[in-house]
Amino acid sequence: MSKKIALIDYRFLTKERMERIRKVADVGGYTLQYFEDNKACRGQLTDFEILFGSVSRHNIREAVSAKWVCAGRVGVDTVCDPALYAQPDCILTNSPGVYAVSIAEHLIMTALMLLRKQYLFAEPMRRGEWGPEPDAIRSLKGSRITVLGPGAIGTAFAIRAKSFEPASIIGVKRNSAKADPVYDRVVTPEELDSVLPETDILAMCLPNTSETKEILSAKRIALLPPSAFVLNIGRGGCVDQAALTAALKEGRLAGAALDVMTPEPLPTDDPLRQMENVILTPHIAGIPNLDYSIDLIVDEFCEDLARYIKGEPLKYVIDMKRGY
Amino acid sequence: MSKKIALIDYRFLTKERMERIRKVADVGGYTLQYFEDNKACRGQLTDFEILFGSVSRHNIREAVSAKWVCAGRVGVDTVCDPALYAQPDCILTNSPGVYAVSIAEHLIMTALMLLRKQYLFAEPMRRGEWGPEPDAIRSLKGSRITVLGPGAIGTAFAIRAKSFEPASIIGVKRNSAKADPVYDRVVTPEELDSVLPETDILAMCLPNTSETKEILSAKRIALLPPSAFVLNIGRGGCVDQAALTAALKEGRLAGAALDVMTPEPLPTDDPLRQMENVILTPHIAGIPNLDYSIDLIVDEFCEDLARYIKGEPLKYVIDMKRGY
Repeated sequence: MSKKIALIDYRFLTKERMERIRKVADVGGYTLQYFEDNKACRGQLTDFEILFGSVSRHNIREAVSAKWVCAGRVGVDTVCDPALYAQPDCILTNSPGVYAVSIAEHLIMTALMLLRKQYLFAEPMRRGEWGPEPDAIRSLKGSRITVLGPGAIGTAFAIRAKSFEPASIIGVKRNSAKADPVYDRVVTPEELDSVLPETDILAMCLPNTSETKEILSAKRIALLPPSAFVLNIGRGGCVDQAALTAALKEGRLAGAALDVMTPEPLPTDDPLRQMENVILTPHIAGIPNLDYSIDLIVDEFCEDLARYIKGEPLKYVIDMKRGY
Repeated sequence: MSKKIALIDYRFLTKERMERIRKVADVGGYTLQYFEDNKACRGQLTDFEILFGSVSRHNIREAVSAKWVCAGRVGVDTVCDPALYAQPDCILTNSPGVYAVSIAEHLIMTALMLLRKQYLFAEPMRRGEWGPEPDAIRSLKGSRITVLGPGAIGTAFAIRAKSFEPASIIGVKRNSAKADPVYDRVVTPEELDSVLPETDILAMCLPNTSETKEILSAKRIALLPPSAFVLNIGRGGCVDQAALTAALKEGRLAGAALDVMTPEPLPTDDPLRQMENVILTPHIAGIPNLDYSIDLIVDEFCEDLARYIKGEPLKYVIDMKRGY
């Protein structure tokens, strides 16, 4: 093992950002090496102590000296597997806050597009028409919002949603004591079924774990009122997508905005693609090229790197057994 | 003149809302008559004391006994003409706050759609594709917002925008003492030229008056940075639309969201219709069928009606000379 840090597949690591990392690395006597993508570092990582970036499973396996892998993103389910790591005490960290701003903005935008039926106007205006006369448009004001997975992302959404004067914002969380005061009420996952019938907007911000798999089941979809919108920016696997599709088709739900789905890419002929009250985006809500996000990813890595060099505990350590 | 109130062209006057008006009207001994539209009340209004609704110029002329016309909307430029009113002391009122919630939500939605380049994803996802790889997406966080016309609507937008942590929100207003504390700074219309070069999002919320006509002139459009978005929900006449179109075409502006334009309906072949970074809506931002808005229109009318009956001054009186 050498005192080496690999920076992998981070296309937005500008010179300025590399310099920020270098300054901290210098303190601990670490050298940096930049790899354009996972292909470029094949066979190169055996003596690296630290990996930063979207490292593939294959490359993690090859990095037999790695003591710390910083994924530089939120969802780490693909690399959350102790069998990948040669060093039994290798630490895996993520960057939970970095996409919160971008994803919160995506959630507010899509909620408003659905509530205001923006899809009614876009095409007619392009086609040269004027109209249509809008029917029953709705508002975030007075809406009942439920945030499933009120972590950094869900809470950034809740804070913004609050300014629109919703009727309520309920967080669903295992440990209610740690919830942000922005929530009017925090309930446990066991109480989820009781809040679904009173939900107009369900914002799903969950990681992929055995506990969250299809947590929005057919039975739970049926508990939502027909006025409800489902927003999912976490992982597609958290939703029974066939049941969601059926409910949308039959008008048992008002609409959905899915940034994540099953599988990705979604098949070309999936019926969700043609539903006017469904907004699909190709897993871009947390867009990593938002300058602000990249700066935060680098900031958080630098902070943790300084801690690592001093021998202090890192901040965003993943519990590989829990999966988040 | 009889103690009669005409309720005109208000399709969303449900039974429940009519009852609310009737209760107040009863106190003053007024009777109500409902007309489905302006055609239905032709020749019928001569002895009505109060008119409530979207009354046409023609019908206002015929209502020779009218002492009070409540327009039930914000922009009253089409009926703001003393020559229309037979009674020299006839009062014209509007309902300035009623569309604030709906329009503020429209402004936030369209700002996010432009910043996040939502137009890049909608069509490819419908067509069965996955992508594209997004380039430089931007955020409300850190954006510099200027609100031109920070009345009830502009301020409802500013309050919501604030929760997204913009770099600054500047209000442009004649009387800065009366501005809401949500603004980081309030400047006079004379200082507008100095804030335009530092504006990422220009939200135009102005009435149509001689002072606001083409206030966003070709010269002022040129002062905006190429990163700027123009949002207009006030009146189309406040913008030099040919100059705006040219600036968008030449990439001197990043995009626009226009709910109002010149003329309305916009000609079928207007080039604005085909620009991907232009969001057009057919003058629906203040959508009057948002339940919340209709309730407020009725509430505000009822409040003023109670004042009118007691002989107190009304709250939302229009100065016909100023035009708002």
